[in-house]
Amino acid sequence: MFEINQARFLRTLEEMGQIGLLPDAAGGGRNRYPFSAADRAARDYFRYEAQDSGLTVTLDAAANLSARLDCGDPSAQTVLIGSHLDTVPHGGAYDGAFGVLAGLEVLRTLKEQNIPLVCNVEVIDFTDEEGRFGHFFGSGALTGQLSDAHIETFLRNAAAHSADLALMREIVPGGLTLDAIRSLRRAPSSLAGYVELHIEQGPRLEEAHVPIGVVSAIFGRRSWEVTFHGRPDHAGTTPLPMRSDALVSAARFIVRAQEIVAGDFPDAVVTCGNVIVSPGVSNVVPNKTMVEIEFRAATAKELDQIEARLEHLRNEVTLHTRTTSTRRVGSETVPTPMDGDIQGAIRAAAERCGYPTLDLPSGAGHDAMLLANVTPAAMLFVPSHNGRSHCPDEHTDPDDLVAGANVLLHTILTLAG
Amino acid sequence: MFEINQARFLRTLEEMGQIGLLPDAAGGGRNRYPFSAADRAARDYFRYEAQDSGLTVTLDAAANLSARLDCGDPSAQTVLIGSHLDTVPHGGAYDGAFGVLAGLEVLRTLKEQNIPLVCNVEVIDFTDEEGRFGHFFGSGALTGQLSDAHIETFLRNAAAHSADLALMREIVPGGLTLDAIRSLRRAPSSLAGYVELHIEQGPRLEEAHVPIGVVSAIFGRRSWEVTFHGRPDHAGTTPLPMRSDALVSAARFIVRAQEIVAGDFPDAVVTCGNVIVSPGVSNVVPNKTMVEIEFRAATAKELDQIEARLEHLRNEVTLHTRTTSTRRVGSETVPTPMDGDIQGAIRAAAERCGYPTLDLPSGAGHDAMLLANVTPAAMLFVPSHNGRSHCPDEHTDPDDLVAGANVLLHTILTLAG
Repeated sequence: MFEINQARFLRTLEEMGQIGLLPDAAGGGRNRYPFSAADRAARDYFRYEAQDSGLTVTLDAAANLSARLDCGDPSAQTVLIGSHLDTVPHGGAYDGAFGVLAGLEVLRTLKEQNIPLVCNVEVIDFTDEEGRFGHFFGSGALTGQLSDAHIETFLRNAAAHSADLALMREIVPGGLTLDAIRSLRRAPSSLAGYVELHIEQGPRLEEAHVPIGVVSAIFGRRSWEVTFHGRPDHAGTTPLPMRSDALVSAARFIVRAQEIVAGDFPDAVVTCGNVIVSPGVSNVVPNKTMVEIEFRAATAKELDQIEARLEHLRNEVTLHTRTTSTRRVGSETVPTPMDGDIQGAIRAAAERCGYPTLDLPSGAGHDAMLLANVTPAAMLFVPSHNGRSHCPDEHTDPDDLVAGANVLLHTILTLAG
Repeated sequence: MFEINQARFLRTLEEMGQIGLLPDAAGGGRNRYPFSAADRAARDYFRYEAQDSGLTVTLDAAANLSARLDCGDPSAQTVLIGSHLDTVPHGGAYDGAFGVLAGLEVLRTLKEQNIPLVCNVEVIDFTDEEGRFGHFFGSGALTGQLSDAHIETFLRNAAAHSADLALMREIVPGGLTLDAIRSLRRAPSSLAGYVELHIEQGPRLEEAHVPIGVVSAIFGRRSWEVTFHGRPDHAGTTPLPMRSDALVSAARFIVRAQEIVAGDFPDAVVTCGNVIVSPGVSNVVPNKTMVEIEFRAATAKELDQIEARLEHLRNEVTLHTRTTSTRRVGSETVPTPMDGDIQGAIRAAAERCGYPTLDLPSGAGHDAMLLANVTPAAMLFVPSHNGRSHCPDEHTDPDDLVAGANVLLHTILTLAG
């Protein structure tokens, strides 16, 4: 079977995993924030490995870093392989980096085997997928889906939080500017499709003992800040029946929201990720409590149904506890179905390599969501041990990592060969 | 009826309420932190008014400020009337100041009417009742109940936070020192008793349409930090039944703790005042959530019963949600019964003045807790409108303020006359 160089591929994953590594005493895992010293080292490593194999490396004005294998026809379209080298705080070795380095390995294999291509093939490391300064910034810029306000917010956040602005200017000579970012957009007609390989970040493939997941759709996500308003009574002198306790309201909302989604929407998820209590001292009944809540589902219809139930719950809770509440609707991502033809190509590639597949939705957001709006896009997953990700003990068996890279290779052969 | 000078008394309350006043745009209310410019102004005002009536003013090494009416017998004991002129941030006009200024008015009335006394009578403004640098610091020092470590912590806090150390040295010439504070303790044999008049800070008197509350006991208070530990899973990819969500555990604990105390301990209170969630971002299942909880009751037995139920609840919740939990026990205040003889004197005084009374516990802590350990101590309350306190809209009707001062006058006549 035609396959990637397994040893070389696993070496690059291992070496990339060392970049930004933190000692266990500091929480372990790795921090590769955009425009940090670790980000710069990761970019240098990718550039060095790509150039070492004779690939062309380019950087765009949003700091997206690409390695490219041209097919020789100046009018040819490009098949993109994408993911990201940035991590969450204390992140694992594979979330993002696996997809980028598997793409790099695919290009190296195609080049050294002199495979004739009808499309260019490009692997791209998208800037700030994890959203330190703005989620999916690189893929948003490349697909022309960022508003000026969005870009300006990102630039302001990055300028305010980068440990070293000089580093940002070294990574993107001259620094990032609104005008340059606005003009880097790729014409959809120049793209032949997009494929992203990623770890599942959930437990389904491991539970099913299947090495390759074919992603049917990426969950849509809605997020709210729900704030409950009560009265800041004295914690010693106000009998419980006379209180308007904003935290007790919030706690009821959190408990019931879980019960409703777990009971009536088993394919969806809901998460309350943060709570902020005011005044937040032990001897005053809280008069204000903010809850960050998000929910995800594979279709807009299911999102609408969950939204209606949570709104009903919010009213029910405030009536029950004599509080009031307000809701601030945050960012929304619509569900994104993956391209059927590329899903078919992934299934065929897996069959050629001898791997079974499982169709499943992606609960996490990925750059593929943004690419899907401008070109046929699809994703494939490999198992995550215990479903863990975004943490130091994120793990995928080497056999599965290699399986994913080989299925990616054969998918690209179908699309560009 | 023998009574206080109503106009003079209400004038002093009104004038004191102007000291440290904040504009509404800055949150309103008044800030009179110990050793602030407003604290100094409040002390100067108290000193001026007391001296103007020929009372003796003294300051001790813990900055407790007293006005004193001597009975003429050098071997006589002293009846203390106490409360505090400091406020919480954005505090009301009455919490503390009402008791001090009513005491001052009682001394003025006794003096100008030449009432013969068998005890000295002293009204005292205790330092830092509200605990900016250390709760009940002044009454703790006067009763000799502060450890050296406690005093040193207070002095360190005060030195670190006082806007102007020079001001502290002006208020207490030479500044506060450990040795001087250690030696200021009053011999219990020198004291004939302690009476404190305060606003209720709760809704019971107003609901019962009764102007005078006779305090039966001051609630004991136990406080804990309960921390729930779960697993930081991805909020999009981890099905709800597979999560260990620390915030959901905490929310169940908060809801059920309220239900248990409201249902089975109607005379007690429980409050969760703060929650801190880790990592505290919307797209990660919380792996850690800390809840600050406190509960108060009139007897140690009831505190023990509530403690046992909450401990059982904590275990139940963690089993139910596949999390674990730890508990850090914080400060504890034991319940303090008030002296029965002085309670009787307060009831008799109210009857003489024509006011009905209601026996009730105090849910808030007061300097009377510390005095009760060295001398017979009791408290009386007047109604708080809507039960509000520790806020700009704290309010008590002038008639009730005057009623409280008159009952205090007649109580002191019983104890010292």
